[in-house]
Amino acid sequence: MVSLRAASSLRPVERALIVHEDRLFPAEPTQRAIARRLYSGVRDLPIISPHGHTDPAWFASDAPFASATELLLTPDHYLYRMLYSHGIKLDELGIAAKSPLSAAAAKSVDPRAAWRLFAEHWYLFRGTPSTVWLNQTFVKLFGLDVALDATTADHYYDTITAALATPKFRPRALFDQFNIEVLATTESPLDSLEHHRAIRASGWNGRVISAYRPDPVVDPEHEQFRDALGRFAELSGEDTHDWHGYLAAHQFRRHAFAQIGTTSSDHGHPTARTADLSTAEAQRLFQRIVAGRFDANDAELFRAQMLTEMARMSLDDGFVLQIHPGSWRNHNRFLFDNYGRDKGADIPTATEYVRALKPLLDRYGNEPGLTIIVFTLDETSYSRELAPLAGHYPALKLGPAWWFHDSPEGLMRFREQTTETAGFYNTVGFNDDTRAFLSIPARHDTARRVDCAYLARLVAEHRLDENEATEVAIDLAYRLPKRAYRL
Amino acid sequence: MVSLRAASSLRPVERALIVHEDRLFPAEPTQRAIARRLYSGVRDLPIISPHGHTDPAWFASDAPFASATELLLTPDHYLYRMLYSHGIKLDELGIAAKSPLSAAAAKSVDPRAAWRLFAEHWYLFRGTPSTVWLNQTFVKLFGLDVALDATTADHYYDTITAALATPKFRPRALFDQFNIEVLATTESPLDSLEHHRAIRASGWNGRVISAYRPDPVVDPEHEQFRDALGRFAELSGEDTHDWHGYLAAHQFRRHAFAQIGTTSSDHGHPTARTADLSTAEAQRLFQRIVAGRFDANDAELFRAQMLTEMARMSLDDGFVLQIHPGSWRNHNRFLFDNYGRDKGADIPTATEYVRALKPLLDRYGNEPGLTIIVFTLDETSYSRELAPLAGHYPALKLGPAWWFHDSPEGLMRFREQTTETAGFYNTVGFNDDTRAFLSIPARHDTARRVDCAYLARLVAEHRLDENEATEVAIDLAYRLPKRAYRL
Amino acid sequence: MVSLRAASSLRPVERALIVHEDRLFPAEPTQRAIARRLYSGVRDLPIISPHGHTDPAWFASDAPFASATELLLTPDHYLYRMLYSHGIKLDELGIAAKSPLSAAAAKSVDPRAAWRLFAEHWYLFRGTPSTVWLNQTFVKLFGLDVALDATTADHYYDTITAALATPKFRPRALFDQFNIEVLATTESPLDSLEHHRAIRASGWNGRVISAYRPDPVVDPEHEQFRDALGRFAELSGEDTHDWHGYLAAHQFRRHAFAQIGTTSSDHGHPTARTADLSTAEAQRLFQRIVAGRFDANDAELFRAQMLTEMARMSLDDGFVLQIHPGSWRNHNRFLFDNYGRDKGADIPTATEYVRALKPLLDRYGNEPGLTIIVFTLDETSYSRELAPLAGHYPALKLGPAWWFHDSPEGLMRFREQTTETAGFYNTVGFNDDTRAFLSIPARHDTARRVDCAYLARLVAEHRLDENEATEVAIDLAYRLPKRAYRL
Repeated sequence: MVSLRAASSLRPVERALIVHEDRLFPAEPTQRAIARRLYSGVRDLPIISPHGHTDPAWFASDAPFASATELLLTPDHYLYRMLYSHGIKLDELGIAAKSPLSAAAAKSVDPRAAWRLFAEHWYLFRGTPSTVWLNQTFVKLFGLDVALDATTADHYYDTITAALATPKFRPRALFDQFNIEVLATTESPLDSLEHHRAIRASGWNGRVISAYRPDPVVDPEHEQFRDALGRFAELSGEDTHDWHGYLAAHQFRRHAFAQIGTTSSDHGHPTARTADLSTAEAQRLFQRIVAGRFDANDAELFRAQMLTEMARMSLDDGFVLQIHPGSWRNHNRFLFDNYGRDKGADIPTATEYVRALKPLLDRYGNEPGLTIIVFTLDETSYSRELAPLAGHYPALKLGPAWWFHDSPEGLMRFREQTTETAGFYNTVGFNDDTRAFLSIPARHDTARRVDCAYLARLVAEHRLDENEATEVAIDLAYRLPKRAYRL
Repeated sequence: MVSLRAASSLRPVERALIVHEDRLFPAEPTQRAIARRLYSGVRDLPIISPHGHTDPAWFASDAPFASATELLLTPDHYLYRMLYSHGIKLDELGIAAKSPLSAAAAKSVDPRAAWRLFAEHWYLFRGTPSTVWLNQTFVKLFGLDVALDATTADHYYDTITAALATPKFRPRALFDQFNIEVLATTESPLDSLEHHRAIRASGWNGRVISAYRPDPVVDPEHEQFRDALGRFAELSGEDTHDWHGYLAAHQFRRHAFAQIGTTSSDHGHPTARTADLSTAEAQRLFQRIVAGRFDANDAELFRAQMLTEMARMSLDDGFVLQIHPGSWRNHNRFLFDNYGRDKGADIPTATEYVRALKPLLDRYGNEPGLTIIVFTLDETSYSRELAPLAGHYPALKLGPAWWFHDSPEGLMRFREQTTETAGFYNTVGFNDDTRAFLSIPARHDTARRVDCAYLARLVAEHRLDENEATEVAIDLAYRLPKRAYRL
Repeated sequence: MVSLRAASSLRPVERALIVHEDRLFPAEPTQRAIARRLYSGVRDLPIISPHGHTDPAWFASDAPFASATELLLTPDHYLYRMLYSHGIKLDELGIAAKSPLSAAAAKSVDPRAAWRLFAEHWYLFRGTPSTVWLNQTFVKLFGLDVALDATTADHYYDTITAALATPKFRPRALFDQFNIEVLATTESPLDSLEHHRAIRASGWNGRVISAYRPDPVVDPEHEQFRDALGRFAELSGEDTHDWHGYLAAHQFRRHAFAQIGTTSSDHGHPTARTADLSTAEAQRLFQRIVAGRFDANDAELFRAQMLTEMARMSLDDGFVLQIHPGSWRNHNRFLFDNYGRDKGADIPTATEYVRALKPLLDRYGNEPGLTIIVFTLDETSYSRELAPLAGHYPALKLGPAWWFHDSPEGLMRFREQTTETAGFYNTVGFNDDTRAFLSIPARHDTARRVDCAYLARLVAEHRLDENEATEVAIDLAYRLPKRAYRL
């Protein structure tokens, strides 16, 4: 058998790593020139990051990050899901199984060894957005100028780990260097918000806010749901086993979130289903839920009803309602049983919106004061369902390409398939949606470049005036997310 | 908060409006040159418009159109659905709610004020086909040469409204100027066809025909169904509450439509489902329907059966059978309750064809004399279901990109996703499908340009000889719709 | 009515047929130059054909092929499905119905007359992959240099038929000339494998192997299932009406297939459903199946369970498991009743994978020694389901664009929609999947060109280094299929 990686003669040992100035722009010269001009107007705009998963503790403590492995590899499920698909065990990357034995083994993994394993398999990521994001990070942030592979793994590890020990790589310094105007993290109602309070009390002027993500107390099928209700009661002082008390607890916690700057809630449900039950029906459903006498339909109906309840609360407190449906979480039984949640085994599913959102839209879809931002992992819904819905309902906006689709091709398909029906102004700019803090500039840069590439084609095909495109590019990068998320 | 529209400094007060000669052609010079050559062969071909929704009364009376607002804005749901999505009330545009109070208020809306509101929000349509269609109309028809915005709204309103009062902007003069060879409107079997008869009696040589659209007497869930059956009986002289009488009434009215030039029927059903019941089953089903003792399944089955009945009648009278499935009509409850049907709130849904069409195809799919043209709002069916079906069944042809998808990107996706399996010759040219009469030349021009752009790519990539592409372009623009619709 | 084919003046009687050196490459010069360079590295690589439907008898007997019609037209369902869709009867092409009368009539069809009919309608295939494949075959293999149409039909027929009588057009000579390193055919467990044994015994060094395709003994709804079980018992010496005997029969036949070089099994099911029943449940299900007391759900569950059983056997014998789901076979009732299976009336259907594959993946998805290759006819699953699944599960790889989608646009969509999530290295190269032996070089060439075109865009947009792209192109064309199929 011919070796799969036989062509190494093609690669000099130290291959230059160039992050090209024109990356992601169309090759055709007319379009490229337009894209460059449009991009020059948005390249240096501040980053608005209204939805993501960074850890507020970083900014509260401002402690230095540890190693290349712990900052860049271990927390990035884009990376370890691909490595896992090629037979690399999570333990080898330092990600521990739940068993004490495995945890000890993973802990004992040398971060440098894990990094080497990653570097050796970096070729697996060719053509994926991870190379776009990470190469930009390697070059722009760490000044690396040779490509990552087995021969340069140590050079990378040492360079990055050394840099992280310096003051300009502290979380707050990076935040400032990244030109982030506002960054939203995501917390459960059960979070004490202590880190957010500490940030606000610290005197540092970085704007870090949270988003209200009540899934653990809204999803009866969440393995911690019953415990969560108890903690929810403690934090709110309400009887969370009574329907009215439960709703009041949400209002109480939303108020606490608002105090630390929150402007949105966020909901990650298996489907987009919504409901509009009478109070009596909702009450009976909730009683079955808290009594543990519910089936899958009840759980689905309860989540559905809670989206409508959240929208009702938004009319009061102005929170933007984000719906992130359609991920089959923890699909790999072996990984879930042995390693727990969020181990790169979430898989998108076909997601229906037209019927699912109708109860919510019948109730609140025409409310001028409400903003519902809907996302999808099912790209078929862009042109068929979501653009038509967002292009009609005043309360509905279309969230950007999400997760598996926030890649160059995915971002482009989003524009190509939504713009003609929803226009640009029913969309809300880019979300990085990431816990990989260092990749935030590269992710926003990718989105800006792809938007400019799309606009450049419209201009070159005489479908849009270049002056208008210049304005649209700024709107997409900066003004729309600020307006949509009320920042 | 930075204003969303802060970049006005980018726009000089009077920005030139240029409708570029090369619009919608690929930017790459080789392809553009080919596209130009192909387009030069189809640009001036007569328009064949075999399916649309213009008002035959216009051509019967030849009365002048009123104002820019009443001709271009109020009847165009593409425009008011987008404006509505940004919080503009229909009343402000002069579209009346059903309540007398609201109707009076809407009536009192100054058409000029509505036009100004539209002009102020024209930027919302950037990147949408409405700008392509309307800008071409503004420039080519009305000679406007500055872009539409708040500052030019009055100039537009006055220019257009003044033009409409002149003889060359009368409906028949425009019809001739547009080089329309044949234009089909769409009428219900309950229409008296008086306008069509008047057109034929007038001596004017414009060819305006109708299409037989029996939805109000075929859809038991239509709110006027029961009344419609009564009117259907009056017009046909048949007992429309008896299954055989009901079918005879259809045959009678189809014959009347044929007399005024009709060559097709058209069916707008929620799904593509067809059925092939025995006479006894159909009779029992119809009895439940007319007795009002039916559920949603019965209604669906009845519509399904009627497609097969219509196909059977087509074997006699030669009507082409058009199926337009998959729109969730009047999705916005508030608008439907207060403003009625067709207010821009129709939303596409996932639509299945392979199982749905089987009963019809089992019965008539191999008939050489029958033409069934099937449309979709679900683009996923192009490559998966419709191109394979149309590329096999002799009776089946694939209708063009429809409604939300008759835009530049949508038209291109249609060709990219259907050609390789169905070829060009199982498609039937373009349908404008519009009630916006003035946009008809721009819509056909858009389709011709996109088809030439697609063909130019095939030629430039050496997948098709340019001589062949020249022939295909003419077929798509002219010969195929004439043949498919038997015009 | 203007004739649909009026533009014949555009075509000189003898139009040159040029198969351009740069066919299928992007027109934009930078990308084209890169594509050329990448292609130069893969153009002459040997063909790895790990999945297809050629007839092993050809290579066993090495008898000359008959006529142009019998080699190129009659066995190619891409061709006759399109011709059929335009009203040409299968009998006219020499494809016989099951009735003796029709069989006699079809047999009496002059192959030259059938070829003329095809040539006359060759324009129907414009824009389809058949023109790409066949034109390359006409030019490169037969040296034809005028385009095919009614006027050149006889020239084609005579040239091709004459060539086929010469030694260099014998099956083995063509195999060598095509530079095929390995070719897999597909046989049922009921096949005696005599032709494969004869090939191996012949001393010819061409590597022709089989794939184990047990559908006739796995699908209880197959019309020959009951008879097949009997023959299966004869061939294996097992009691195939007992669950354990039935499984042992599979193992026995798999072993026989392994003896003649087989490295894979292949399964063409209506859906991707898998199951993981207990032995007792499986036994009871099998008893209902063999007793003929099963419904559609039982049949579906049995097929589902058998995929998991096959995976289990793969752990022993190392066969790669290929799943080809989602084709509605023999959709045209008239054709099935009168002409039998496989007459160009198979239609893709929407296909779900995330739920369907879970039982199999829960059982074996993390097995490092297992390779499951999954295919789809539903392109919507590429980015939504299959790339995420293949980009996570170690055992799962993503098969190439299949059947209706192995065309230039289809191959490109496959890369555009899978690469960013699954990368290149969870895919397995190209399958020609064809019984049209002469088209094999053109099909692989098409895939190589499209992959180079895709890679050229990545390089031109600075998303991939050209050295890396050079390596990837070779991997896709050669190394990945060898590795994935263990060849």
